[in-house]
Amino acid sequence: MKDRMIAALAQKAKDASRELALVDTRAKDKAIIAMAGALRKNVSYIIRENAKDIALARKKSLSSALIDRLTLTENRIRAMADSLSQIAKLKDPIGEVIETLLRPNGLLIKKVRVPIGVILIIYESRPNVTSDCIGLCLKSANAVILRGGSEAIHSNIAIFSVLNKEALKYRIPEGAISIIKDTDRKIVDGLLRKEGTIDLVIPRGGESLIREVAKKSRIPVIKHYKGVCHTYVDAGADLKMAADICFNAKVQKPGVCNAMETMLVDKRIARAFLPSMIRRFQNAGVEIRGSEEVKKLVKGVKPAAEADWYTEYLDLILSVKVVSGIDEAIAHIMKYGSYHSDAIVTCNKKHAAKFLSAVDSACVYVNASTRFTDGGEFGKGAEMGISTDKIHARGPMGLEELTSYKYIVYGNGQVRN
Amino acid sequence: MKDRMIAALAQKAKDASRELALVDTRAKDKAIIAMAGALRKNVSYIIRENAKDIALARKKSLSSALIDRLTLTENRIRAMADSLSQIAKLKDPIGEVIETLLRPNGLLIKKVRVPIGVILIIYESRPNVTSDCIGLCLKSANAVILRGGSEAIHSNIAIFSVLNKEALKYRIPEGAISIIKDTDRKIVDGLLRKEGTIDLVIPRGGESLIREVAKKSRIPVIKHYKGVCHTYVDAGADLKMAADICFNAKVQKPGVCNAMETMLVDKRIARAFLPSMIRRFQNAGVEIRGSEEVKKLVKGVKPAAEADWYTEYLDLILSVKVVSGIDEAIAHIMKYGSYHSDAIVTCNKKHAAKFLSAVDSACVYVNASTRFTDGGEFGKGAEMGISTDKIHARGPMGLEELTSYKYIVYGNGQVRN
Repeated sequence: MKDRMIAALAQKAKDASRELALVDTRAKDKAIIAMAGALRKNVSYIIRENAKDIALARKKSLSSALIDRLTLTENRIRAMADSLSQIAKLKDPIGEVIETLLRPNGLLIKKVRVPIGVILIIYESRPNVTSDCIGLCLKSANAVILRGGSEAIHSNIAIFSVLNKEALKYRIPEGAISIIKDTDRKIVDGLLRKEGTIDLVIPRGGESLIREVAKKSRIPVIKHYKGVCHTYVDAGADLKMAADICFNAKVQKPGVCNAMETMLVDKRIARAFLPSMIRRFQNAGVEIRGSEEVKKLVKGVKPAAEADWYTEYLDLILSVKVVSGIDEAIAHIMKYGSYHSDAIVTCNKKHAAKFLSAVDSACVYVNASTRFTDGGEFGKGAEMGISTDKIHARGPMGLEELTSYKYIVYGNGQVRN
Repeated sequence: MKDRMIAALAQKAKDASRELALVDTRAKDKAIIAMAGALRKNVSYIIRENAKDIALARKKSLSSALIDRLTLTENRIRAMADSLSQIAKLKDPIGEVIETLLRPNGLLIKKVRVPIGVILIIYESRPNVTSDCIGLCLKSANAVILRGGSEAIHSNIAIFSVLNKEALKYRIPEGAISIIKDTDRKIVDGLLRKEGTIDLVIPRGGESLIREVAKKSRIPVIKHYKGVCHTYVDAGADLKMAADICFNAKVQKPGVCNAMETMLVDKRIARAFLPSMIRRFQNAGVEIRGSEEVKKLVKGVKPAAEADWYTEYLDLILSVKVVSGIDEAIAHIMKYGSYHSDAIVTCNKKHAAKFLSAVDSACVYVNASTRFTDGGEFGKGAEMGISTDKIHARGPMGLEELTSYKYIVYGNGQVRN
């Protein structure tokens, strides 16, 4: 029964995606702007539905951090609407000619940006993901199937209903936006077997969710793993600049994937840099977990265990290691990191160049905070998330990264010899 | 035991890939040119090893088509060497700056092409794939793990040995090129679980192989499925041009994925076009399987069964259908096709535009043979194959499609507000 339901839903999305691919930019933008308006008009309805999720979360004694992520306020809903208005203003990637080739035999080949087709998004907790994904997929002419976490099901369905109802008024095809209302986990397994109908899966959430999806899926997956981000303070660094960058990377917003989790410091400057830096962190409430050398230099630092170097704290905790130089720093990052965002602070151009080419992460920085890894900061306007994959899209995923391409070939009778 | 062997091999490839990423273009090209020379010098050794595979294939009574694909001659080996020399001449994609952005806060962001890392290629029969893949992966600085079919194991190992021995002389890191010598199928299963070490899997071969790989792999897969390619002869076609295009698409090389398998003809020109066209096909030895209307128009045509429309014959067989017009043609292609290469022949610009935008295939043609879907014909020089996926690479995969990118960000102390 459920299998048939899943097949029907996926096929409906596929059919809708074909129609959606032909909808012009103006029509898509008009729909998205109207959808932003509908969100603003339905603030109280959405808050009422959200209250049901919060009540259930309290009953289940979920953590206050999770309940905070779950909670929708008038301001948060307005921010979701503003984000949609923002997406309407972005350049439409569909139809863009990426490359034009005139071949010696007269064939004119155009490489043209097209939608991917049907995208399944599997996510947890934050209900604003629902509207962001709908906006980004609609603008890039992809049909979207949403599968949010059960803890936010009322909120997600409410947001979906408001947006989809408005979209249909603007002749966005039925099925272009859909949501899985059944929280049974088997539904996900069934969806992940719909290769050929669903074109791409984007899981967003905890590591175990992502691993599970990558393991089960027969459909291509673009993973948004954790960010174990490093800053390496080189012997050639401006120490004042290094301190400001490290402080910002850890403290400004510790709960996000581009925040620094490990600071690596060249032994030649450890004595000059670490004591005041660690004091500054501690004054801001950051717990320091240090290697042996760090503990020797600064009193009252907890020891870092091997597991710490692999850990994404997403919290005011920082692991700190003294390294023998740039080579050890690079080796540490390649061993323990998650290839998300890593930075070097140095005025030594050779070291900067070496770090930038040897560190195989989506975003590598010299003399800046890793916190800049973000669609908005990269000029993409809005983002689907940060890909830690190397296939298709890497780093911040904006509208362009939600497209594929096709080759359109114009001839006048050419045949092959 | 085997698990440990697989893990060691994959890790060695990973380590080698990091070194290989830093090898400059000149050094890679010198190695590839030397490798081409080594192939030419070792023709008789390779032919001797190839003879073992052919003897086994005869013993197993494999088809003559398969034995032909398996057979290496001096000319075929020279062609493999020439293909390597060709690859050495191609532009190195690695290090190319795809995009440069200067942000208002002064951050300079460069999007730079980098290797993918470690690529596992799983393929069948043709031993020339071994040297082509080694050349393409080496030039794009990817470590490659080769897993060829058991029927070509001696030939593949011989080609690998000659090329790898030469590569090592030119300081290509050990492990950058490797081959699985054990033909146990479980080895593949083990490799497909090496997510995090192997970055990409490219299966090339029959449909069942590809489906099996896509099902089992936890690593991203770029599929090279079958090509059920169509040519639609519109009422607005120049019928002489249409006949030449269709004849070429079917007959010039029927055993390849970009050959036409189904011809669709607008009913308005069926009577004028089909009888002479079908006679021309039959004179060239092509078996026609037609829909009811085709059978009515031309005597002696076999009926096409429903399964025919889904079939990639790779042979001198063609299914032919009369359709009511462009909409039915598009619907047929979207239902039965494999989204590889499809063509319309017409002088009607509206119909051409409609076909090009509505047919969701990797390559769509107006007034040309589908046989042009090929890396060389598209100006890519050499190709890994034709991707029928929409993620990462679509259509002919050349060097560029074997790359990822990373963002290199230059700051002077920027922190995020």
